[in-house]
This record gives sequence, structure tokens and C-alpha cells, in this order.
Amino acid sequence: MKFVSYLYNQEEQFGVWDEDQKGIWNLQAIQEKYGKKLLPNKLVEAIDPKYSLIETVKELLAFGKEHKTSSFLQNVEEIEWLAPIPRPTKNIVCIGKNYREHAIELGGEESIPSDLMVFTKAPTTVTSHQASIPSYSEVTDALDYEGELAIIIGKKGINIAKEDALDYLFGLTIINDITARDIQKRHKQFFLGKSLDQTCPMGPWIVTKDEVPHPESLEIETKVNGEVRQQSNTKYFIFPIDEIISTLSKGMTLEPGDIIATGTPAGVGLGFDPPKLLKSGDEIEITIQQVGTLFNRVN
Amino acid sequence: MKFVSYLYNQEEQFGVWDEDQKGIWNLQAIQEKYGKKLLPNKLVEAIDPKYSLIETVKELLAFGKEHKTSSFLQNVEEIEWLAPIPRPTKNIVCIGKNYREHAIELGGEESIPSDLMVFTKAPTTVTSHQASIPSYSEVTDALDYEGELAIIIGKKGINIAKEDALDYLFGLTIINDITARDIQKRHKQFFLGKSLDQTCPMGPWIVTKDEVPHPESLEIETKVNGEVRQQSNTKYFIFPIDEIISTLSKGMTLEPGDIIATGTPAGVGLGFDPPKLLKSGDEIEITIQQVGTLFNRVN
Repeated sequence: MKFVSYLYNQEEQFGVWDEDQKGIWNLQAIQEKYGKKLLPNKLVEAIDPKYSLIETVKELLAFGKEHKTSSFLQNVEEIEWLAPIPRPTKNIVCIGKNYREHAIELGGEESIPSDLMVFTKAPTTVTSHQASIPSYSEVTDALDYEGELAIIIGKKGINIAKEDALDYLFGLTIINDITARDIQKRHKQFFLGKSLDQTCPMGPWIVTKDEVPHPESLEIETKVNGEVRQQSNTKYFIFPIDEIISTLSKGMTLEPGDIIATGTPAGVGLGFDPPKLLKSGDEIEITIQQVGTLFNRVN
Repeated sequence: MKFVSYLYNQEEQFGVWDEDQKGIWNLQAIQEKYGKKLLPNKLVEAIDPKYSLIETVKELLAFGKEHKTSSFLQNVEEIEWLAPIPRPTKNIVCIGKNYREHAIELGGEESIPSDLMVFTKAPTTVTSHQASIPSYSEVTDALDYEGELAIIIGKKGINIAKEDALDYLFGLTIINDITARDIQKRHKQFFLGKSLDQTCPMGPWIVTKDEVPHPESLEIETKVNGEVRQQSNTKYFIFPIDEIISTLSKGMTLEPGDIIATGTPAGVGLGFDPPKLLKSGDEIEITIQQVGTLFNRVN
């Protein structure tokens, strides 16, 4: 199932992407007709296991398809995309240097981490599929892209064993961990260079884990203006998903709706000689197998 | 004015600390009697300028003092302390090495930063005045204290000029940026070593800025088991408050309720030879002039 958040009549709601019909099932409209409000309007709240989201949505979709009216299936043109979680309840957690070749392109062999490297992006960085990204020419000369698979946590947990870790996974999405390289370098710790407003495009949806049986064997590709810049596979993770979840949760509670970006492969702009950093007008397309394509343009 | 958040009948609410009477004005009870619900129950929401918090509370307190009943002024024994913002809406922003002597004790002269060093703590780290802190002996051998002045943002802003920065300040509180030194070191970026659950005691209250005309000339002292470990003054900040606010807001929106810890002075446990790290039973008391004293015990 692919969950999409969007604005409809100026209200945030979420629905289910229908690949065949290229439309979105409007869960709010279906619930109204169904006569029962089973789910909150915001996806980040509905992920809480108490809503049994997938089962509930299956029930609503079955009803919706049976009593189909034009208002149930929305055309993409009628809506405004939001990130699947437009306002996370905490910072986005990001894993640094989780692909060997990327660690090498930025700092040579010695920068391959032996332990998880973890930093965060402010919630104010989140923006949607198809949104324009400011070029921030007044604060940075070195805006860069980073295509990444992000995992969404589905239930609360602490000290999670590696072998149980995937039980805590709700689904997957794509993020572009846009980074101001000069700010990142100048301030040592990564947070500031990673936290300019709208530098975390996310989406277009969250695909639930049942649709992606092998999240660690997915092709990942980033194109800028049609040119392939990053091309790798999540099988090259230094730290696989179960280890990420287990390590993060050592003493730190993970919660439903937490977003963890798993790191970017080689081919970021700074990795080229001369660097291929972002400039106004650039179009960035990140595609992850079985997940989708996230598209953004730099303003 | 000193705002306290607390549990009363299992509900989070906030009130005003009365230093003379050593009690808390129960704003919920006063509003009930007043017949108008002027403020939300949670302090983090009430800080939003749309509630004109201080003026509204002055009006409520005047009414409360006039119609005084026993339920209006609560005894400290009746309540359970919460951190003034028990669940921030994003990670706590922390400034690293903002006192020269502390930078030197951890890394020598060359570790004195020329630019703001910024990292975050997860919202799940927040705990209250008087709360017990887990010793985390299963995940760390090097738990350390860091007494810090924290500033609370009062209104939304981006690209804030240094000369306007203090307009964005709501008030001040104390935090203990408890750190697992071994995790901090092993994972390079600071986030993980700073984010164990309940390693950010905060409080006992937020004092509004009108009561602290010179936040950059405050004595700060940390005692462990009665022994003075840190003793300094906020006048020794490398980056003063206006510069912190201005630099953080370059391209990143600050929001009401944002918490920014301004860094810790020399005298952390790791700075001693041999190190004086935290152990079970240790009692930590951080006192900041004109703000108060934050007390916690390691379990």
C-alpha cells in the first residue's frame, strides 16, 4: 500500500495511491460515507499501531470500491502534494556515510565509518514531491543533493534486538538530504548544514513494508537534469536496516512516525572534480526500485 | 514570571511559580472560575504569541488573587514536576564548546571553535526537575553531566538580524545535557551520545526574559554530591545569545517553544584527571543566577 499525504480544500489529509488508476483514494470521503471515523486525518498519527492502519484501510477501500462515487478517487491534478509526513514530531535521523564508495569520495578510505554516524535534520526541512527548493544563494555556495532510502518506524520500542528490528518498520520512502556543504564543513557537526528550510524533500509516498519484501536489495538512482549522478543498490549498505534500528534504539526510544534516512551512495555533487553542485533551475529525480520517484526543482 | 509544567490529576498543565508562597498558581482552575478558557493546557502551545501569554496570565493572576480559593494555589507536594516543555515539537538544539575553558579541557586550544558547533538531542531525552536519571550501565561506561543555560524561543522567525535577536527570546531555563562520552566519541557526530532517554533534565521552570535583564551575565554552577564541579558565568560565552539566534536562523525557521542549550562551562566529569564521571546515586545540582536550581539523581 502506498500512503500519500496531500492538501485538499486546504486541509492536510492522507489517502492511498492507486497505481492502475493514477489517482488517490480519499480515505476521509470514504469514512464519511461509511459513517465511522476510524482514522485521524494525519498519516503521522494514523501510523500508531492502535489504529491497525493497514487492516482499517483495507476495510475502507473495499467499501469505497463497492460504493464508488467520483469523490472517492481523486485525480492527481485536484490535489497538492505534501510530504507523507509533512511535519515530523522530531528531527529526521540521518545515517552518514553508509555506502563505502560515498565515504571514500568525500574523505578517502579512512573516512569509512566503523560505527554508525548519526545526525539530524530539523522538521522544518521537510517538503514535498514536486516542490521547489530555494537555492539559498545568500547563505551557501555549495548546495548538494543526496538521494536516500528512508525508513519509517511503525511502533514504539527501545533496546530492539537486531532479529526483531524489522518488526518495527512501517514502510519506506525517498528523501533528498539536501546539504549546504560549506555550512556543514564550517560548523563541524552536520546539523546546521543539513537544516535549511525545505532541504528535505520526501515522498512521493510511504510504501508499506509488505510491498517491499527485500528493502536491502533495491536499486537507487539520482539524476540531475537527466544525467545519472548516483547509481547504487541498498545491498551496499555498510550498516543494514536491522542494525540501524537496533543501534539507534540502544537507550533511545523509537516511536511510530520516526523517519530515518539510511545514507546516500557515491555520486554527490561534491564528489565530482570539479564539483557538480546544485544551481537554480536544476531538476533532481531520485528513483528507488519498488518505492517510486521523487522529483524536485531548485528555484 | 516563572512557568512550571506539572502533572495534576494525571493531566499535563502549567502554572506560575510563586516564590513567596512556594506554590504554583493553577491557571486551569483560575480559568474555570473566570469562565473563559484563554490558554491551552500545554505551555509549549501557550508560548505562541497569539495567546499573549504574559498579559493573559497577569489578568488571570489578578482575578485569582482576588477570588482566592484553596484550589488556586497549589502546594508543591500536591503535584508531580514535569519539564517546562516535557515534549518539545522537535529536537533540542545544543551549542557545543561555547566556553573557551571547556573547549580546552576536552581538546586543547585547537578545539576552540571559530564557528558555532550545533548538534541536537532527541525530544525523548527530556525529563523533569527531581527526576531520577537511569545510569545506563548496559550501554555506557562514561555518563557525564553538563550544566547549561537554555533559551526558549518566543516567536517564529528566519534570517533574524543580531540586533533583533533578543525580541525572539521568550525566556530561560536550565538543562543538564547528560552525555555518554564513549558513545559520543565512537559515533563521531554527537547525536547518539546525547540522546539516551531522560538525559535532558530541564527546569524547574522557564523564567520569562523580563525577569532577567542581563542573561549574559549570570553565574552558573554545577555541584555533584555537594562538590562544585563547574563554576562560570554566561559572560564567558564565545558566541553570545544574539549571535546564536541569528546564526541558527540563517535559512532555518525558529519557532515558539524551540529550546536552545547554550553550551557548558569547564568542569565536566571527563575534564578531570582522573575523570569524575557519573555513577549510580550521584546527585547533580545546577544553579543559574536569577533562574533557579535543577536537581536530579542518577539511579
